Order: sequence, then C-alpha cells, then structure tokens
Amino acid sequence: MALIVQKYGGTSVANTGRIKSAAARVSQYYSKGHKLVVVVSAMSGVTDNLIKLAKEIMPLPNEREMDVLLATGEQTTIALTAIALHSMDVPAVSLTGAQAGIVTDGVHTKAKIQNITPKRIHELLAQAKVVIVAGFQGQTLEGQVTTLGRGGSDLTAIALAAALKADLCQIYTDVDGVYTADPRIVAAARKLEEISYDEMLELASLGAKVMQSRSVEFAKKFGVVFEVRSSLNDNPGTIVKEETKNMEDVVVRGISLDKNQAKVTLVRVPDKPGIAARVFKAIGDASINADMIVQNISHDADAPVTDISFTVDKPDLLKAQKVIDALKPEIGFCKVIATDNIAKLSIVGVGMKSHTGVAGKLFDTLARQGVNIEMISTSEIKISVVIDLAKAETAMRAVHAAFIG
Amino acid sequence: MALIVQKYGGTSVANTGRIKSAAARVSQYYSKGHKLVVVVSAMSGVTDNLIKLAKEIMPLPNEREMDVLLATGEQTTIALTAIALHSMDVPAVSLTGAQAGIVTDGVHTKAKIQNITPKRIHELLAQAKVVIVAGFQGQTLEGQVTTLGRGGSDLTAIALAAALKADLCQIYTDVDGVYTADPRIVAAARKLEEISYDEMLELASLGAKVMQSRSVEFAKKFGVVFEVRSSLNDNPGTIVKEETKNMEDVVVRGISLDKNQAKVTLVRVPDKPGIAARVFKAIGDASINADMIVQNISHDADAPVTDISFTVDKPDLLKAQKVIDALKPEIGFCKVIATDNIAKLSIVGVGMKSHTGVAGKLFDTLARQGVNIEMISTSEIKISVVIDLAKAETAMRAVHAAFIG
Repeated sequence: MALIVQKYGGTSVANTGRIKSAAARVSQYYSKGHKLVVVVSAMSGVTDNLIKLAKEIMPLPNEREMDVLLATGEQTTIALTAIALHSMDVPAVSLTGAQAGIVTDGVHTKAKIQNITPKRIHELLAQAKVVIVAGFQGQTLEGQVTTLGRGGSDLTAIALAAALKADLCQIYTDVDGVYTADPRIVAAARKLEEISYDEMLELASLGAKVMQSRSVEFAKKFGVVFEVRSSLNDNPGTIVKEETKNMEDVVVRGISLDKNQAKVTLVRVPDKPGIAARVFKAIGDASINADMIVQNISHDADAPVTDISFTVDKPDLLKAQKVIDALKPEIGFCKVIATDNIAKLSIVGVGMKSHTGVAGKLFDTLARQGVNIEMISTSEIKISVVIDLAKAETAMRAVHAAFIG
Repeated sequence: MALIVQKYGGTSVANTGRIKSAAARVSQYYSKGHKLVVVVSAMSGVTDNLIKLAKEIMPLPNEREMDVLLATGEQTTIALTAIALHSMDVPAVSLTGAQAGIVTDGVHTKAKIQNITPKRIHELLAQAKVVIVAGFQGQTLEGQVTTLGRGGSDLTAIALAAALKADLCQIYTDVDGVYTADPRIVAAARKLEEISYDEMLELASLGAKVMQSRSVEFAKKFGVVFEVRSSLNDNPGTIVKEETKNMEDVVVRGISLDKNQAKVTLVRVPDKPGIAARVFKAIGDASINADMIVQNISHDADAPVTDISFTVDKPDLLKAQKVIDALKPEIGFCKVIATDNIAKLSIVGVGMKSHTGVAGKLFDTLARQGVNIEMISTSEIKISVVIDLAKAETAMRAVHAAFIG
C-alpha cells in the first residue's frame, strides 16, 4: 500500500478514449490498495488552440489573462478524468491547482511553485478517493490564477510527490523511458533502467527532450525519485534518482545529438581584456542564447589575436550574425564565419568522474570515421563536440558502438 | 458617470470577431466615463461540446465534476474578452465566479447564489478597470466550483447589479428586446419599450424564451431594473421593471404561443376526494411537469364522475400516458385521451387586473376564427387557452390584431 503520484501528459489524455485508458491504469493501481494522486495535462492540441484564439484578438496578449485562459485546459481534463474513473466505479475527485493548495509566485505564464498546502489532498486520500490534480497551474496568495510554463505538469507531479512524501512518482508519456541514444538514429540504442538526475539534466538540455530540465532540477533538489514510462504499454520505464556508487561503473550513460545548433566564429579578434564580454553582452541583449563558447590561446605575442567561436540555436543564426557585424567597427576582428551546417554530439555519464581516457576514446572514434572536430566543450560528466552535420548520424552510431555497444 | 452591468450571452461572444464587437461596445461606454462590470457566457457551442465529451465517457456524469468541467467555458470567455479590451487600450481584468465573490450553495449544476462579496470588484473599479466576470458559475464556502444551471449568466448579471447597486443592467442577446408576439408568426408584432416583471415572467414561462424565469424573479425580488437588448445593433431594448400605474393602461402587453405542449384527458374519473392528488403525485414522481390542469364539476349526483385534463411538454406525452394507464385499475376511469395536436395561446398584461371583459373578447375573437377552445386557465394577469395546433398561428394573429393592433 503505497502513495503514488502519477502524471499523464497531453498525448496520454488526447481524447476521451485515451482518458479512459489512463483511468483504467489508475483503477488497476487503486484496486491493489494504493493511494493515488493523478496529475493531468491539457488534452493535446487544446492549449495551442487557446493560444491561437487569444492571438486572433491580439498578437501579444496580457500574461495574467493568458493564465486564466490556459488554466481551463487542465481543468477540463481533471473533470473528464474523474468522470472516467467514476465510470469504473472508482471514487475520484478533481482539484484545480488552486484547490490542491499549489501556491506560486505572481510571475504569470512562468510562475514558480512557492509551497504546497496539501491539506485537501490528504483529506480526500483519507476518504479513499483518487485525487485528480490539474497540472501546470497554481494560484498566488492573492488568489490570481497562474501557470508554470513549459513542462509545468511534470513539475506539478514532482512537487506534489515531494510535498506528499509519495512512495513513487510515475511520469507517463508517449515514450518508453530514457534511451542510451535516439532509437530513430541508433538502432542499437536501448532503454536505461536508471539514470542519475545530473545525467538526465545533461541529456535533457542536450536535445533528448523527454522532460524539461526544471522538473529534473526540482526532483534533484528535493530528492524525488521518479520513473519515466509509457502510457501505451505496461513496460517498466527509466528510474531517475540520485547517483549511486553502482552507477559510476557505467562510463557513458547516453549519447545525444543536437542538430538545431549553428556556429558563429569571429576570426582574428584582438586578444585583450573585455572583448569577449562585449561580444556576449551584445548577444545576450538580443535575447540570443549562446550555448558552447570556445576561445583559444593567442600565438602572436606582439599583436595578439585569437578566434572566438560560439553556437546558437539555428533560428537565431541570422540575428546573431547581424549583432556581431554591428560590433566590427568597435572591436576590429578580421571576419565572421557563420554556418548552420553543424551538429553537437555529446556523451554523458557520471562514470566519467572516475574513469580516464574517455575524451581520447571519443576523439579516436570520431577520427576513425573521418569526422573532423570543430569545437570541444567538457563538464565533469559530459563531453560535447561540434562536428559536420552531414556526418553526425554516422558518428553517433560509431560512438554508441564504442561506448555502449 | 454610472455603474453599468452588461451581460453578453453565448451568441454575442460566439467567436473572436463577436468578442471584439462586444469589447468595442464596452469600450464606448468606458470612454464616456462609466464604470463597467461585464458578465459573459461561454462561447456558443462550447458548453454543448463539453457535455458531449463527458457523455462520451459516461451517460450520467457526476454533477460536481460537470461543474468543474462546464465552468471552463465562461473562464475561457472572460480571458478572451479582457484581451479584446486590452487590444483597444481599455484596462480590463477578468474574474472567475469564485474570484468575483459569488458564493453559492452546494447543489451542483443548479446552485443558488447565497451572497456576493464584491470586494475585489469594487477595488478594481476604483482602479478604473473594466471588470469581466464569468457568468453561470460560483463557489461554495468550502471552495467547490458550482454552476447555476440554465440562464445562469443572466442571473449572475442581475445578482451583481443588485449587490453593486448598479445604475443600469443591460442584458445583451441576439434579439432586439421583448415583443408583443413572436415576429416570425405575427408580422404586426412590435418591440415593447417596457414590461413589468410579472408580465415578463408570464411570457417567459409561456414560451417567449428571452430569459429564464429565475433571473426575472431574482430581479423582481431585489428590484433590479434591467434592459434586454441586442448585441448586434444600437437599438434601445425593452426595460423590465416593477409595474407602474401607467402600465395598467395597456390591457394586453404580449401574446405567446407554446407549441411544445401535449394534452392528456382522463375521461369519466370517479369524482371523489384524493383522485386528483393520486394522479398528479404519480405524474410528479415520474419527473413530468404538468402545466395546465383543468377539472370540471360533476353533473351526476348519484355516481359522480368528471373529466380531468392536463398538459405536459410534448416529449413527456408517452411517459405521462404510461403513468396514467398504470393507474387505471386503482382509480377506475373510463379511458385516456392523449394528443400532441394542440398549442397553448396566452395573453398577458397587468392591465387585466383593472379591465373587465378581456376573457370575453378573447373567446369571441377565437370563435370568429372558428377556433374551438379545449381548455382554459387564468391568472390575475394572464389568460391561457389550449387550441388546435393547426389553427394556432392564425388564431394568434387574430388575437394580436384584436388586443394590440
């Protein structure tokens, strides 16, 4: 008899048929005597449709009103899910974010959860009710409706699991779990039984978008162990938790490939203090996110110059190039090279902390495939390289074979 | 500078174009310096669609959950209406029923307003904001979402007008106001400048369904003067208020025709105490609403028998007939005649209280048209007759010509 928090995403409640399937799963757990809190997202498509309506009226609608508008999506799903459970003779009660005691700050459309007062949830659980909670939404202390932004429903589930000290938190989605690599690219990719928060964070931020980073960070902060699994079958998923000694035996947990990056290089920039600051302040001011940044040492001691390279999201490349061009009179570099013909390949694993030679093996593997490395960036548990887009998938398969099998 | 409550029904906010039109009207009033509280319904079709979704899952969904579900309809409209006002540079804030301080009892799907605490509305009005309130919904003291049932948005508007002591309450709908008769049947019908609550109630309950009776009753109870008018043009509408001495000069204010009635007659029922009670208890137990009931005196003093006739809504006729048939062994009437080939014609006017000869003139007018009267029922300000359905429209035009012109 455990207290279980389950979360069903938009595709898992896309229509009344899917809602009934999700309810049937909840019912199975309930019939085994477990206590259940079920967090649901808006039915897929609903949120986009509401945004479309608002933008028909005004291109940049007020954020407070967008929260009032979008909160209806999850509210619709909680009622339908409760009704689906009733149809299976399972007692269920729906709660909006506000009713569930989810208190947030007042930053509309991307509010942060400040605290959870789960009094009502506890009361309902004590009455043997399944509690259905609207994901993605909360309420300020002043009674304003707020939403949590992208990935908000996952966050609701993990925050509730923390507040309720749940025994288990299951994130149901349309994939079977976290894989060693994207199975569409690497046929040999396999589902991981477990992964550490840090590995998941690196993989999430690197393009294996099973979950948004903020939910994983929240889980890490509060030590919430959760499982990512499919709502379409009964396969066990991937457990995400704090790293264990055991986990370090595996050097590389997963490999990700981000094809949505582009590269900008400033050639022969004067190598003096303040130049990099000037460049990246301008990039930041233009709301462009620079991801990898590489600058190498300068060789000419008399008139020191260097090259600065960085990557941005592909759609931002043109804008980034314009920003840099505008700096030329002030900074005086030689030229700018911009290319979107690249990909970023990363290997991630907490085992790298205690294993040596990982980088060498990666570079060697790439060299054997005739893949040139254009940029390198490393963290304690990750090595990323920027390579030619055309060779990226071949490279990924080779790296997977070398490190994972 | 007045405080004005405006209510826009589902067809007046049916899509983003209509919402913008409604907002433009609000903006006009606002620019004249008025304070505005705007009550909106769900966009037309939305509520029906939500009900359809719920019934796909379960034929008789739980009423608490239906309230959670249906409340999303109005919540969507308040946000979109506020955004539409913002697009016209009018400061506007949306409030759900709960946020607006509308407290109801806990009878889900047909809750009654218990009180309104308009603190937040007053604060926002003091900040020169237009306040958009979700119609049809409220919250119990325990924080449960409730809805007010049919005509609930009108009720919200009138209750808010009472609580705020508004100077004006305008109910915007898709008709120009209240007419002397249905203009689709009587070409000579004309819009009334004013009508008393009681007349409006008789007309509403008789099939001229501009507004639900409960809203008019509420307005009468709290003395809220309101105007029914069109959201599609700028024509003045019909003012609904307490009757004045002046109003009694008009004998017949309006004529209504209800073609949705059917008639059941129990022929030769024993005329003894308790029979009528038995019949109408059985009808009530079957959730059938008997409207007109007529029983005449008995002529045969030795074995007194009588006929009992009553009308029901057409869809209930078969059910009513079955209920009565089942009573035959117990009561011992001769036979049952059931027909849906009838219509109910009513003339309504507070002037009837002080004018005589109205009934005679009505019956005479019908006789001249060769219309036989099958049942008669009267109240202080109304005379209703049941007549042949085939002659109903001709009869209505003749009665309109005789009393109104």
